[in-house]
Amino acid sequence: MITGKNQIGNTLSAEGNKVYRTFNPVDNQENSWEFLEANSEEINRAVALALSAFEQYRTFSGKQKGAFLRLIAEEILELGDALLDIYCQESGLPQGRAQGERGRTVNQLLAFADLVEEGSWVEASIDTAIPDRSPVPKPDIRKMNIPLGPVVVFGSSNFPFAFSTAGGDTASALAAGCPVIVKAHPMHSGTSEKVASAIIKAANKTGMPDGVFSNLNSSGPEVGKQLVSHPGIKAVGFTGSIKGGRALFDLASEREEPIPVFAEMGSINPVVVLPSALKDRSEYWATQYAGSVNLGVGQFCTNPGLILGIESIELDEFSKNLGEKLISQNSGSMLHPNIHSFYDQLKSEFSKQNGVETVAEQSANSKPNVASQMVVKVKGSTFIENPTLHQEVFGPFSMIVSCKDESELITIIKELEGQLTGTVLGNDDEIKTYSVLIDALQNRVGRIIFNGVPTGVEVCPSMMHGGPYPASSDSRYTAVGTHAIFRWVRPFAFQDWPDELLPEELQNDNPLGISRLVNNTLTRS
Amino acid sequence: MITGKNQIGNTLSAEGNKVYRTFNPVDNQENSWEFLEANSEEINRAVALALSAFEQYRTFSGKQKGAFLRLIAEEILELGDALLDIYCQESGLPQGRAQGERGRTVNQLLAFADLVEEGSWVEASIDTAIPDRSPVPKPDIRKMNIPLGPVVVFGSSNFPFAFSTAGGDTASALAAGCPVIVKAHPMHSGTSEKVASAIIKAANKTGMPDGVFSNLNSSGPEVGKQLVSHPGIKAVGFTGSIKGGRALFDLASEREEPIPVFAEMGSINPVVVLPSALKDRSEYWATQYAGSVNLGVGQFCTNPGLILGIESIELDEFSKNLGEKLISQNSGSMLHPNIHSFYDQLKSEFSKQNGVETVAEQSANSKPNVASQMVVKVKGSTFIENPTLHQEVFGPFSMIVSCKDESELITIIKELEGQLTGTVLGNDDEIKTYSVLIDALQNRVGRIIFNGVPTGVEVCPSMMHGGPYPASSDSRYTAVGTHAIFRWVRPFAFQDWPDELLPEELQNDNPLGISRLVNNTLTRS
Repeated sequence: MITGKNQIGNTLSAEGNKVYRTFNPVDNQENSWEFLEANSEEINRAVALALSAFEQYRTFSGKQKGAFLRLIAEEILELGDALLDIYCQESGLPQGRAQGERGRTVNQLLAFADLVEEGSWVEASIDTAIPDRSPVPKPDIRKMNIPLGPVVVFGSSNFPFAFSTAGGDTASALAAGCPVIVKAHPMHSGTSEKVASAIIKAANKTGMPDGVFSNLNSSGPEVGKQLVSHPGIKAVGFTGSIKGGRALFDLASEREEPIPVFAEMGSINPVVVLPSALKDRSEYWATQYAGSVNLGVGQFCTNPGLILGIESIELDEFSKNLGEKLISQNSGSMLHPNIHSFYDQLKSEFSKQNGVETVAEQSANSKPNVASQMVVKVKGSTFIENPTLHQEVFGPFSMIVSCKDESELITIIKELEGQLTGTVLGNDDEIKTYSVLIDALQNRVGRIIFNGVPTGVEVCPSMMHGGPYPASSDSRYTAVGTHAIFRWVRPFAFQDWPDELLPEELQNDNPLGISRLVNNTLTRS
Repeated sequence: MITGKNQIGNTLSAEGNKVYRTFNPVDNQENSWEFLEANSEEINRAVALALSAFEQYRTFSGKQKGAFLRLIAEEILELGDALLDIYCQESGLPQGRAQGERGRTVNQLLAFADLVEEGSWVEASIDTAIPDRSPVPKPDIRKMNIPLGPVVVFGSSNFPFAFSTAGGDTASALAAGCPVIVKAHPMHSGTSEKVASAIIKAANKTGMPDGVFSNLNSSGPEVGKQLVSHPGIKAVGFTGSIKGGRALFDLASEREEPIPVFAEMGSINPVVVLPSALKDRSEYWATQYAGSVNLGVGQFCTNPGLILGIESIELDEFSKNLGEKLISQNSGSMLHPNIHSFYDQLKSEFSKQNGVETVAEQSANSKPNVASQMVVKVKGSTFIENPTLHQEVFGPFSMIVSCKDESELITIIKELEGQLTGTVLGNDDEIKTYSVLIDALQNRVGRIIFNGVPTGVEVCPSMMHGGPYPASSDSRYTAVGTHAIFRWVRPFAFQDWPDELLPEELQNDNPLGISRLVNNTLTRS
């Protein structure tokens, strides 16, 4: 059952008067559930509760937080197919995708549980005293990461599980010791409510303080704005559009006490196709990229929207081939009619630009909200001159840019905005031959891929999902992988503190057995 | 000889028309040298040169950067007493302090040289491929820290060596692989020019690219504003006032591409004196704190400006004792007449507030620009009600707040703005008894000290010099200690990149022998 209420800590609340519904894009009709947007008082209550929960939660051990995260994963699985059904009804995505994304979400929760149970993530550092140092004695100084405070997480439209209510932002913030308030995405508030109920259940079963988690409904930007402006909120996690992310970043920067916003925003994920790739594996790459462009109906942040090559017959053939393979794939329903119409609008805007050639476009589907895949092609000089073409087209769309030579290709790369990923297709020798080009690409992205597709973001310590602005609002952090936890912590130092009163992480005998920097040497002893 | 010119990479330049001089506060007269503020074209040239230097410098090995940093330290020492003389003439600080601060600066440079020569600071992380993983193969992903790009460093007024031209910000940014443009502090542009010449000499002798370092003169905020707004600048380091730091933060946040600003700003460094400290060691702490309040003529960012206790005869005695000891110390010259008059103005503003009692004030000195030390006392309730009293008084001044009980003390701590440090004087048992109070203090500061003074910031890996806003603009980083390098880097991931073309830090056989996270295990192999 979906109540449509806000979950403020352990209490369901429905005091507002703004009612909204989610939409099933496959059936092209509103879902039956009614949601009540959180009102101002409810928002304040959620923050006050999070602040009071923080006083306790920040002192909880890695074991306690690990047990909580593990149980969230279990409780989500416990919701079974009913949860997947709601996900599909609110996103139009197929059951298989829902299942896969749930798996990813559960794995993320478990990875953060592992991380905090092991404990070394606090980056403990100990410099012991030298009382007889001259001219002044050296004090004993010990440092470790501590949580920032209550975090607001904005659910994303395109990953109702993995980047939403119990997604990577929430899992990493809870792991860090920060209470979380989720602003549910208006497109999938039912999914959010169900997942939130799993989190609350897990919180109660593992003895977490009331307010460690809240889930607030919202139909527009107001709830988010009030949350980000609230003095009790200490950091923000967001996945979505540049416009939305930048608005939150601006709001947070203008506060009396500015707070960090980690916004993972748009990206067109440039792919550079070097000559050997077109000679030796053109067919293979056309197939791979047709799949990558269309994955998740093109609604992935690592969707390859820009393919750059040097003009040649081979590049023309590759383009044609990619176009044919892309439109031969099944078309899927987009997340929402608004997203679908925005996709159509941008496609048509692109087509109308001077010098833009349509390589292939799927004919319009009779079903509503289904995206027609499209590949267009443009000359390097045209691309450089026309900023309209530099926008992200959110959907199964890609643009091939045919450059007259390497130097034009480098010019384009240097002028690109920051990107999540950059990909190079070619052979080892070309990495050396085109080193200037590849250096330029490296400078614009967070992750560089050799002979692969940018879609598919592995959850592991080495992942970097973020990049120079506007790929993300702070290139110094990743949104995916266990190191995403560092967004929510600050280093804290104890000077000459009595050993037995220090947190266990910093005590002399290292009771947790974690890896620590002791007098500048990494050790577990 | 001081030329008064800007140092743009290897070239001296003096194209502007704004001339200014520095001031000797001890002699109460302008120094003879004339400086030419950098004009708009010179600023653009410095940034363009830094950008072109970055393309090379970012690829330099830890050994190369280490040699550069070591030689900077040598070249600074090579300048000998002549440099110390200029420092004293521009700051009014005594020779001993100049010498001590030079030592600290040299040690910082060497510490960063050690760090990059050893190499593990890049936090290399490797997750190897699992080609036969189902349902999809796991790619090979490797991550390490890479430099952000050109950094602007603002020289501070109060540390002409250690937090200025070749100070911690510059040393850490150069160590990270970022070219640096220093905006010389208008109060000590001669010192800056001499130190800059040492850096340029070292850069040339170690084969660094032209533009890896520039030093620009400025008489007011314009040069800094233009630098922070320039699209070629990727990060900013600042030490100074809240007003100045916040203005730069706002400017950087409003850019089309926002950039990180690390501003270390004001702090009043609260000290909580618990009953046992007043009973057992009152005399000792009065002596220690008289020294700490007056250190560097009270012009340290960790100056203890707020001393909190619970009202008692012992607290009254301690106050009186502290006041007597403080005014029995020698008074020193402040850095500049403006700083001195602002100090006097704030002192008098504080004295005029209702309920503020002067415990002791040094009578005015006949010499100009000499600061009269002062201790005032106020009741907890008065402090809470009057925000005027919450300001930092930059100088040898401290305020004792006498709270009616622990609960009032906790209220005050909870309402404090973010601070660099918090100090607790007492015994081990009291840490437990007053745990709520100490938890509250921890939540407001970056470093907590037991039975010590906040002045004296050790340069070591465990140091945290920063804290919740407005102690710093980003509590997730430290300005002092080797971990200050992390302000200037971003993680970067390679996916399926050929081993021999990876940076050495990420190659399979670990040619640098650094500590790395390999498949989630820390190892040097």
